[in-house]
Amino acid sequence: MKKNVVIIGLGLIGGSLAKAFQKYSECSVSGMDRDPAVLEAALKSGAIDGVAGEKELREADILYLCLYPQADIDFIQAHGSQISPHCIVTDTCGIKREICAHLPQLAEQFGFTFVGGHPMAGKEQNGFAASDADLFDGASYILVPCGAPQRAVDTLKALAIELGFGGTVVTTPEHHDTMIAYTSQLPHVLACAYVMSPCCPQHNGFSAGSYRDVSRVARINEVLWTELFLDNADALTGELDILIDNITRISEAVKQRDADALRGLLRQGRLIKERLGE
Amino acid sequence: MKKNVVIIGLGLIGGSLAKAFQKYSECSVSGMDRDPAVLEAALKSGAIDGVAGEKELREADILYLCLYPQADIDFIQAHGSQISPHCIVTDTCGIKREICAHLPQLAEQFGFTFVGGHPMAGKEQNGFAASDADLFDGASYILVPCGAPQRAVDTLKALAIELGFGGTVVTTPEHHDTMIAYTSQLPHVLACAYVMSPCCPQHNGFSAGSYRDVSRVARINEVLWTELFLDNADALTGELDILIDNITRISEAVKQRDADALRGLLRQGRLIKERLGE
Repeated sequence: MKKNVVIIGLGLIGGSLAKAFQKYSECSVSGMDRDPAVLEAALKSGAIDGVAGEKELREADILYLCLYPQADIDFIQAHGSQISPHCIVTDTCGIKREICAHLPQLAEQFGFTFVGGHPMAGKEQNGFAASDADLFDGASYILVPCGAPQRAVDTLKALAIELGFGGTVVTTPEHHDTMIAYTSQLPHVLACAYVMSPCCPQHNGFSAGSYRDVSRVARINEVLWTELFLDNADALTGELDILIDNITRISEAVKQRDADALRGLLRQGRLIKERLGE
Repeated sequence: MKKNVVIIGLGLIGGSLAKAFQKYSECSVSGMDRDPAVLEAALKSGAIDGVAGEKELREADILYLCLYPQADIDFIQAHGSQISPHCIVTDTCGIKREICAHLPQLAEQFGFTFVGGHPMAGKEQNGFAASDADLFDGASYILVPCGAPQRAVDTLKALAIELGFGGTVVTTPEHHDTMIAYTSQLPHVLACAYVMSPCCPQHNGFSAGSYRDVSRVARINEVLWTELFLDNADALTGELDILIDNITRISEAVKQRDADALRGLLRQGRLIKERLGE
């Protein structure tokens, strides 16, 4: 499929999408970024064929919004009239209710198609410099159609498989945000809370894989994640309450030296993982 | 150094030590295990040269206790009189105060030397079948001499480097237990508490690296870890209280939609990791 792909925002996700399109597809890729140095790096590395302007927006077959949630909405409010009715616009945000409260209406207003999207990939570095054509290798790609035609959803699914994703999942904004609060936002909160212990700076020599794994994502982009957490505040705090409650149950068993209760709680954890075959 | 090494308990750690000695040293290795099938597997795979009996105990230069904490103490109470005065006895337990409250006295009583030890390596599988000659590759080896002569400590350090450990750290039982509560026990509690969310069984398609990393060690040996947690109850519950407090601070900022406070807290997490160069 030789399509005109336009990518708005060439950070970790946008930059990786651009590189994956160049490596794995026949599409022509143009990009937009507020930072001229990033555009230059993207051109130089061959991640984009050209800088996207009004002409590229008008000719776009697929447009990926790779900014922060509110900035994605702002971009379409400012530039939606330049996007062709045949274009599929999608986003890559980590929350979907806030996006889907605005973008389907804007799509109707401007006449293009919108399908929400969330590539389940990332790393603990930001920006174009960290982008990688193989970031999505084997990852899940979540699609939130919000009433978009099946044809558009199928086009994005097919492109995702071309780019190396391992599979796609179609869901509602509400279910997406509930699950993401648990699978992604909670571990980020945890990592930050974990490294705040006074023991953390002395961990060297006393730590191994479990320290490394829990603390890894504490290297967080606090501006992005503050927006993502606040856009999903109800689901996230619900999960945090559940987690605090479960930690407290284990802690109480330890405090009361109740070996039977403690074994029972840890056993629950083991059985859940074993049933998942993990 | 061609020494007679005896390993008591051929589970994940004991089995891996045996295999590492065979692969990387000139030592002769014998082993003891209450399960005849494990002894047979260890012999067949060449992990041990023979089954250890009274003769091997008497001739041991180094004896590694690789049982659970109380079982290590019980073993020495039962067999200490068979151990030669020139032998260095060490253990591999994840807690050190409880071990060091008993084993140095038993060493004095029976005339051998005791040095506490803790190889900082593991995986989310148990038993001899999961053991691996390269389990310790690059890992830290913590030594807790408890008054043992420097010569004995140096012998164990040299052997550890031969077996592939990345480095050694010498400390007190108290400091060991404080640090391990944070670096190892806390992530195990967290993993179990994390997978108890009702969202966990549905995570497939909605998860990536951060789910995998936080939940990994929920596949826990609940009998061993109950003993380890209760032997370190004060330090562990102290760390759990600190963690719950820090999670609660982040959760409160989200509940109050306080973007500035939330950014400030997440920024703290990022800066701690960055200062550690991680």
